[in-house]
Amino acid sequence: MSLDQVLTRIDETLPQALDRLMDLLRIPSISTDPAFKPDCARAADWLVEDLKSLGFDARAAATPGHPMVVGHGGEGRRHILFYGHYDVQPVDPLSLWTRDPFDPVVEDGPKGKLIRARGASDDKGQLMTFLEACRAWKHVHGSLPGKLTIFLEGEEESGSPSLVPFLRDNAPELSADLALICDTGLFEGAVPAITTMLRGLAKTEFTLHAADRDLHSGMYGGLARNPLHVLSKILANLHDETGRVQVPGFYDDVAELPDALRAQWQALAFDHASYLGDVGLSVPAGEQDRTPLEMIWSRPTAEVNGLWGGYNGAGFKTVLPAEAHAKVSFRLVSQQDPAKVLTAFRAWAEAQLPPDCRIEWHDGINGAPASVMEIADPAFEAARQALTEEWGRPAAFVGAGGSIPVAGHFKTELGMDAMLIGFGRDDDQIHSPNEKYDLESFHKGIRSWARILARIA
Amino acid sequence: MSLDQVLTRIDETLPQALDRLMDLLRIPSISTDPAFKPDCARAADWLVEDLKSLGFDARAAATPGHPMVVGHGGEGRRHILFYGHYDVQPVDPLSLWTRDPFDPVVEDGPKGKLIRARGASDDKGQLMTFLEACRAWKHVHGSLPGKLTIFLEGEEESGSPSLVPFLRDNAPELSADLALICDTGLFEGAVPAITTMLRGLAKTEFTLHAADRDLHSGMYGGLARNPLHVLSKILANLHDETGRVQVPGFYDDVAELPDALRAQWQALAFDHASYLGDVGLSVPAGEQDRTPLEMIWSRPTAEVNGLWGGYNGAGFKTVLPAEAHAKVSFRLVSQQDPAKVLTAFRAWAEAQLPPDCRIEWHDGINGAPASVMEIADPAFEAARQALTEEWGRPAAFVGAGGSIPVAGHFKTELGMDAMLIGFGRDDDQIHSPNEKYDLESFHKGIRSWARILARIA
Repeated sequence: MSLDQVLTRIDETLPQALDRLMDLLRIPSISTDPAFKPDCARAADWLVEDLKSLGFDARAAATPGHPMVVGHGGEGRRHILFYGHYDVQPVDPLSLWTRDPFDPVVEDGPKGKLIRARGASDDKGQLMTFLEACRAWKHVHGSLPGKLTIFLEGEEESGSPSLVPFLRDNAPELSADLALICDTGLFEGAVPAITTMLRGLAKTEFTLHAADRDLHSGMYGGLARNPLHVLSKILANLHDETGRVQVPGFYDDVAELPDALRAQWQALAFDHASYLGDVGLSVPAGEQDRTPLEMIWSRPTAEVNGLWGGYNGAGFKTVLPAEAHAKVSFRLVSQQDPAKVLTAFRAWAEAQLPPDCRIEWHDGINGAPASVMEIADPAFEAARQALTEEWGRPAAFVGAGGSIPVAGHFKTELGMDAMLIGFGRDDDQIHSPNEKYDLESFHKGIRSWARILARIA
Repeated sequence: MSLDQVLTRIDETLPQALDRLMDLLRIPSISTDPAFKPDCARAADWLVEDLKSLGFDARAAATPGHPMVVGHGGEGRRHILFYGHYDVQPVDPLSLWTRDPFDPVVEDGPKGKLIRARGASDDKGQLMTFLEACRAWKHVHGSLPGKLTIFLEGEEESGSPSLVPFLRDNAPELSADLALICDTGLFEGAVPAITTMLRGLAKTEFTLHAADRDLHSGMYGGLARNPLHVLSKILANLHDETGRVQVPGFYDDVAELPDALRAQWQALAFDHASYLGDVGLSVPAGEQDRTPLEMIWSRPTAEVNGLWGGYNGAGFKTVLPAEAHAKVSFRLVSQQDPAKVLTAFRAWAEAQLPPDCRIEWHDGINGAPASVMEIADPAFEAARQALTEEWGRPAAFVGAGGSIPVAGHFKTELGMDAMLIGFGRDDDQIHSPNEKYDLESFHKGIRSWARILARIA
């Protein structure tokens, strides 16, 4: 019954919660632009005050960049850390905004009310869902819902330069049993989702050398080795006709999707035609024996991200260049080791070199492995049930094709798994003009956290 | 006996011939730099005066650029046109010159005396070999060696913008039975050579499109089509494992080398190891069942001259680009038709496109076919024998991998074959600092023309 009281309190005080979010949104905390450094500090101070009002022992901890907001409070058998970020993206081009990005307003949108402002969705609106859940809980119960640490970063939109040093310097204080991260979205804008798999990344850049100078194709064409031909042949061999990566051993450490997850993903009925259609494509181009969701969430990739050599300017130059260049990256899953993958790729590429060619590798053997959360932890299933109740449709454990660096850092620096839950939608226009956050996302987001905390904290 | 008298006269008056060349070399006729426009006019006037002193009816004909020098003289059953160019390349970087580029001098070199100056080899020294041969002939015989037209261009080093219009406007005056062009060299610096095959050229640039925008490999990697992969596969298919071009019909109009030419080329004992070694290579990379000379002279090629797409800057961007680009050219031989080759290439490339991809072609279907001289004309064999006598080793009909545009223009505009004979050496450093021309090239070049004219004019 007490959860119902909390949810009722949330519903009744939504206008006040919205007012608080508006206050935070009015602070132009653009982390990448030094001109806004005082505003970042002001946003951090605002949050410290708000945390203190909830009973947290909170501070704005200085870093070489913008401060980290850290607050501790509550009691419980399990220590939970909540992460969000209070900094926002720049707003240019300002001319494309329908209003001042830092003068938030509630508008009527085609699908309901929405909050329009820079940071509404990424990430101020999202982080406030958690604080508002705590506030309602405190009002009803007189105490916080568990042993909580709040950790709010101010440099997420500018590459998080202070994050890893701060985690290392404050590891005992920040090491919790589980992290909650609110910086993701609903699946296809509708299905509540917990991201439990994040692909890793390994990347390499190299130069393929042939002659020791550029040659004229009139004098040498047909006789001299053309490194653009050699590079094309190597890269053409990267995938076979079914889309499978041909580097030996590439799939050795790739686990098959557990049946339970496969069932959840099938139930999502991912509309890949629409996902591809949005960008002018229609046919899934990856491993042909895999589903589209597997392609982007649970299968590794090899992708050429850059390729260049010879003459690229206007007009024509009949040059046989001395060298050709490529940037290649691998999205990694399961237990794939970045160093092992890159080492295998190097050996595989060099084995294809004809006479007179060599490859110069421009970077070390490194990268980030995939993050695969330990969903055997009952908190994951509990959170999934809480989300299912709130949103009225089965929540799912999903993957994410890209990395969310903070989740990896929590794992590597603090040994802490993370549960990524968020309420953003694909049309929120984060990083773009006219960012918005649906009022429903804010309201049901707060209610979602109340339900989750009731089960796990 | 009269040829011997001419040769003796050439030997006896070499110092005076050298003085005249020095006078011409002192004029800085750099055609590409407007600051030297008066010098170009001065060089043209100098040549007009010299031609008049030889009994030619000569003029400097105005063009929108630098003047053309045209002279007519002599009598004979066969009308022969001689082509050279009086303009020179710029001299920068001046600091790398051992002396003023326009203060010519005769120096002792490791392999004999040489003339050091900009234009000594390209092309003032070469064109003067012909005029000096005419001068000695006139002295001995009282008349020029045949019906001659002298045609000296002043824009060869700046793209010959006025050449084709001038040929068209003066076609009746300039159409001779045969053209002699003195702007090439001895084969490997030692073997006298007549260039009778020049490869043609067809080229194309295209963009391969996939998605309608650049995609993030975290969100789309493994699902979306990567145009860099598609382009690599197409270009990798351009040649099979033996180096043969795989575009259907590519070799349809390629003739086999006549046995007589094959024998001559074998006798040249081309040192391909040294030719490749000079640029850091060792292994002929073309069609593996062809000799290195065939690869560069008589076989067609398909070469990627430029290739680019995705992110090419510093660092890394895990982008799946919307498009990929290539520039591809074909060196053509025999009767290959540029339009037919390009049309076949387009169809072949498009047939390899997977779903969601298309190719945008950036230019028309055009190019220049190969120039293959009609060596059945007895003048060719006569000139070969003359060169053999002068240089004391068998002269050869050779090919040239690149085009010499004026030869093609003579053919297409005037229907006139050309015999390309020159005495430059590979170490003449044309277009570079410290250009030189061996005194032997100048001396024996003059003697060569006397012998050739005795046989053909």
